[in-house]
Amino acid sequence: MIKIGVIGYGYWGPNLVRNFAETPGISVTNVADLDIKKLEIVQKRYPGIKTTRRFQDLLENKDIDAIAVATPVSTHFELGMAALKAGKHLWLEKPMAETSEQARKLVEEAEKRKLILIVDHTFIYTGAVRRMGDMVKTGEIGEILYYDSTRINLGLFQRDVNVISDLAVHDFTILDYLLGEQPIAVSAVGTNHFPGTPENLAYLTLFYDSGMIAHINVSWLAPVKVRQILIGGSKKMIIYDDVEPSEKIKVYDKGISFTDKPELIHEMRVGYRTGDMWAPKLDFTEALRIEGEHFVDCIKNNKQPLTSGSLGLRVVKLIEAATRSMNERGRCVELNGIHMHLGRKVA
Amino acid sequence: MIKIGVIGYGYWGPNLVRNFAETPGISVTNVADLDIKKLEIVQKRYPGIKTTRRFQDLLENKDIDAIAVATPVSTHFELGMAALKAGKHLWLEKPMAETSEQARKLVEEAEKRKLILIVDHTFIYTGAVRRMGDMVKTGEIGEILYYDSTRINLGLFQRDVNVISDLAVHDFTILDYLLGEQPIAVSAVGTNHFPGTPENLAYLTLFYDSGMIAHINVSWLAPVKVRQILIGGSKKMIIYDDVEPSEKIKVYDKGISFTDKPELIHEMRVGYRTGDMWAPKLDFTEALRIEGEHFVDCIKNNKQPLTSGSLGLRVVKLIEAATRSMNERGRCVELNGIHMHLGRKVA
Amino acid sequence: MIKIGVIGYGYWGPNLVRNFAETPGISVTNVADLDIKKLEIVQKRYPGIKTTRRFQDLLENKDIDAIAVATPVSTHFELGMAALKAGKHLWLEKPMAETSEQARKLVEEAEKRKLILIVDHTFIYTGAVRRMGDMVKTGEIGEILYYDSTRINLGLFQRDVNVISDLAVHDFTILDYLLGEQPIAVSAVGTNHFPGTPENLAYLTLFYDSGMIAHINVSWLAPVKVRQILIGGSKKMIIYDDVEPSEKIKVYDKGISFTDKPELIHEMRVGYRTGDMWAPKLDFTEALRIEGEHFVDCIKNNKQPLTSGSLGLRVVKLIEAATRSMNERGRCVELNGIHMHLGRKVA
Amino acid sequence: MIKIGVIGYGYWGPNLVRNFAETPGISVTNVADLDIKKLEIVQKRYPGIKTTRRFQDLLENKDIDAIAVATPVSTHFELGMAALKAGKHLWLEKPMAETSEQARKLVEEAEKRKLILIVDHTFIYTGAVRRMGDMVKTGEIGEILYYDSTRINLGLFQRDVNVISDLAVHDFTILDYLLGEQPIAVSAVGTNHFPGTPENLAYLTLFYDSGMIAHINVSWLAPVKVRQILIGGSKKMIIYDDVEPSEKIKVYDKGISFTDKPELIHEMRVGYRTGDMWAPKLDFTEALRIEGEHFVDCIKNNKQPLTSGSLGLRVVKLIEAATRSMNERGRCVELNGIHMHLGRKVA
Repeated sequence: MIKIGVIGYGYWGPNLVRNFAETPGISVTNVADLDIKKLEIVQKRYPGIKTTRRFQDLLENKDIDAIAVATPVSTHFELGMAALKAGKHLWLEKPMAETSEQARKLVEEAEKRKLILIVDHTFIYTGAVRRMGDMVKTGEIGEILYYDSTRINLGLFQRDVNVISDLAVHDFTILDYLLGEQPIAVSAVGTNHFPGTPENLAYLTLFYDSGMIAHINVSWLAPVKVRQILIGGSKKMIIYDDVEPSEKIKVYDKGISFTDKPELIHEMRVGYRTGDMWAPKLDFTEALRIEGEHFVDCIKNNKQPLTSGSLGLRVVKLIEAATRSMNERGRCVELNGIHMHLGRKVA
Repeated sequence: MIKIGVIGYGYWGPNLVRNFAETPGISVTNVADLDIKKLEIVQKRYPGIKTTRRFQDLLENKDIDAIAVATPVSTHFELGMAALKAGKHLWLEKPMAETSEQARKLVEEAEKRKLILIVDHTFIYTGAVRRMGDMVKTGEIGEILYYDSTRINLGLFQRDVNVISDLAVHDFTILDYLLGEQPIAVSAVGTNHFPGTPENLAYLTLFYDSGMIAHINVSWLAPVKVRQILIGGSKKMIIYDDVEPSEKIKVYDKGISFTDKPELIHEMRVGYRTGDMWAPKLDFTEALRIEGEHFVDCIKNNKQPLTSGSLGLRVVKLIEAATRSMNERGRCVELNGIHMHLGRKVA
Repeated sequence: MIKIGVIGYGYWGPNLVRNFAETPGISVTNVADLDIKKLEIVQKRYPGIKTTRRFQDLLENKDIDAIAVATPVSTHFELGMAALKAGKHLWLEKPMAETSEQARKLVEEAEKRKLILIVDHTFIYTGAVRRMGDMVKTGEIGEILYYDSTRINLGLFQRDVNVISDLAVHDFTILDYLLGEQPIAVSAVGTNHFPGTPENLAYLTLFYDSGMIAHINVSWLAPVKVRQILIGGSKKMIIYDDVEPSEKIKVYDKGISFTDKPELIHEMRVGYRTGDMWAPKLDFTEALRIEGEHFVDCIKNNKQPLTSGSLGLRVVKLIEAATRSMNERGRCVELNGIHMHLGRKVA
Repeated sequence: MIKIGVIGYGYWGPNLVRNFAETPGISVTNVADLDIKKLEIVQKRYPGIKTTRRFQDLLENKDIDAIAVATPVSTHFELGMAALKAGKHLWLEKPMAETSEQARKLVEEAEKRKLILIVDHTFIYTGAVRRMGDMVKTGEIGEILYYDSTRINLGLFQRDVNVISDLAVHDFTILDYLLGEQPIAVSAVGTNHFPGTPENLAYLTLFYDSGMIAHINVSWLAPVKVRQILIGGSKKMIIYDDVEPSEKIKVYDKGISFTDKPELIHEMRVGYRTGDMWAPKLDFTEALRIEGEHFVDCIKNNKQPLTSGSLGLRVVKLIEAATRSMNERGRCVELNGIHMHLGRKVA
């Protein structure tokens, strides 16, 4: 039985504790939070869990095998590094650090100490994303031509991170998971409608060596909630609508192909192909549950997590590059360094 | 009774003839097209209309007051200029010319000769756009914070124009109509998935001096048809869904405002406001019919059309700037010249 | 070339003339209507067609092979019978007559004279209904357990027929086409919200010997337009949404089956089965065009039309029975007579 | 502080306990259930609550003021009556009893002992239903012409109650709440697709003295989940879509009115009126929470609950009448007795 201590019982921490409590092979023994009221809630709900205001208590506890950090991003590096140095496996909320420099140090520390480092990019563990991954890997949808994501709603304006860190980060990880390649450049524009606050609306474009383009539209200032990804493949096209309760993924047997039909010559010999649409049945197991079991498996069998520190680092680099581009009104920022460096690491 | 001759009976010409035939105060007397089969169709449908393969016949005909040009864009300048020089009022399909230089010459020629020049940006005459214009002008939706448009579907790949000229052009005119200001810069990225063809997918961002951002997502390679505009105002927000058969426009009494409530201090004192949504009844009269009557009114009373040559010129300049930006992978192209120059002309 | 004369150029007549004009093997030579203005429209649109206010002119014309009757239902019998007696093949609008007695006489007259009698139940010729027919016939959806249709909108209140004759009639024909059996009883309730007008809202239930139940909800007084049929099969279920522009038919691999799993014993050992959903590509050819070609084929090759007079008669009988039940507040009206009689005829 | 004991911790009991635990003025002190495992769950979640397998323990406990019964319907009468005789206020799950005879005795017993009896018809406490109630009461939608409800999905086949008791019961209470009158007759048809099980599909029609018709379509065997009510008023029409996450209620300024326009004489002088649609902002407080606070208020101030025993009795009578009609294939069952009797009781 792996024993885990959770630092931070604010917005996401309660989900982690609830989930670990129901996952076989792992149990939450301790929770730390600076807010005494939060700790009282823990004790009411889980009389068996010990609570403390000092996170150091968890690190010093020899019985604890792993630490989950669910605090504001500005503290991820300090707390995560301390946990690793105390010899604990590490579950880090996303984004894993404020800077890629910090993220790299965390990855290296975990590698050096042979500890498991998982970054909580939960989306990768949903039935919908895993199903799309299958369709890409089997070649069912063909070569990916474009990826177009919209994540907008009247959302919580955050103080410490912009809308890219909050929402576009999901697309960065989904793209990393679906594609075999890394973007070579990124362009982003955005705006903050209220002075002194982080950007609350942004448009990003990621360029790939293959010619593939990924576009991401994120906003905290929209009247309706949209969570939609379009993926255009050379054989088939996918719409993934995460707001839809039942048929989240629709696959369209639609596309365009060149033809030699003489009557189409004035239309550049482009032929339109339309066929059936289908919505595959998805696994609706809670993603966090699958991720928890995966973490246990990685610790027990010394495996690299699907959402490893390396992935977390690539994501932080993309946030940095996109934010830099946004500050320069969309100037195209090259990611060659990332490409080279990560290309090696990924393999 | 104004007599009009129509040059070009291909894709859009039949709509013009049918519409002028039903508009009071104007009648189609002649149609020219190079294709004899097209002319035979005209004669079958409208035995009273004279047909010819020589457009010059129309220009030389003293009885004709106005000419409508519905031919490929590459011929707009030559035909339009010839019509003006023959002293005819001019109805030009969009975009009005291949270059802003050509467009400017047409505008100047019309002004010099005191002839009416209307560019067929039909969208401006729809009940939906006019209703949104009312809401902006009365201050009902407050200051416009952003404009976000999506126009995608599995569309006809065109040979002579890219997807910006085909689809984004509608947003250029709607923005021009709704806002009191011109964009100061544009950034665009796009791609053609089939070598040797114009771009079939593009993302554009228009920057305004007020801080307003307009974003436009256009594609001929999407599995579903989307025609949706989001307008975020400081008081209200609008969704205009042109695919929706009945409630095309939805107005949301939603937004964000800063507050002094201490309990929200950790959320930057941002307060969320949500209220009713409503879908105003729209005028469903065919836009082309309204535009036809407007053209008659402008000729009879020597008025400047709502979609004047000046508007058409501004649109062509935007197409040029956006295409230039797209060729340079999203480099921000300034439009100051346009801003200054047109600012004067508009007035 | 079959020559057809059309009687009635009101609401539906123009569609017939336009459609016959484009169908190979048939041509409209004459149109009759009492309203001289309607005839003027015909002459403007189709200079080659002769017009008259006397329908007798068409019957006396030896060159005419077939007559289409698109007049109010109260005149169907007189005009249809006269056409048959003049030796013309007959295309009758739906419902084919005011009473089943009249309908039977028309069927018998056509049989006696070996003339083709088609009733214009257009729905049967749509790609959607034909595709559902295939799914039923191949056994793909299993045994049909229920049929549930909703046809409501803010519709034209009619003077001479109630909402059953106007809307439920489509379901009567679709059911007749899909199922191998006739209903054995019908129960209907309805109401007219405005004194002195026909019923504008009705709910019908059709009972079948197999235990299948069909339910039909029709109204001219609903704020939105719904055209939706649910078909529950023992293997699969279908939703046919005719208002949906692209995916009109969705097939769900969902259902219920009995199981022996002990943990389900408290739920009566009912197991739920959910799988993929798919929307087959449909043929979008205009139904009226297919029906027109079918009429030509039936005349040339002496075939029985898919929507024969026998079908039309069964439909009129159902209208009669449903209306009788509605007048008696839902009393179950047995259709045994129909069942016996038609059972023979169908075969 | 009112002390309440909950009998039954199966499907709904946990919701009651969680809700009462968060409601001011009431606290759950005891829970009874026959299943020891259920009681262990209670103890883990709420260490402060005492548990027992003997419901009598709760009745004998002098500290307990009220009892909530959340057991199968077949036990409602026995347990409810015992609770009342022990002098406890009573919260009963719906439907309140198996027969109207039992329901009447419960109502009488509560009245005699001056105890509060609330039946948990939760829907009445939702923001959506309360908002519709306001619109009806203020006359905003005019006279109600029809009510049309659809509640279908692939639902749990129940062993002890049919689909009317499970789903149509919601409409019975909403109708009772919205209208000032009781139905005078009911007609129902239904079927069970699996031998030996209760009906899983039913269609009901309720007739009112005013001419109003209510129709209810319920099924456990549909491929999609629909929860939709249409209410046609003489001034406005409402669509209440409970599956819709945000705009649950849409109000249409649409309708029909008689006119004297001569050009409409052939359409019976019916004029169509269409105007704006709007979706009022609703209160999204959990209905069960509001109902809990209402129960506390009724006990403290000796008020009659909104969902009183009298309402519960009227609902059970409707279930009985509808089931009787269903067993006789839709024979119209008169409810005059109910009407007379309850009319007095309601006042």
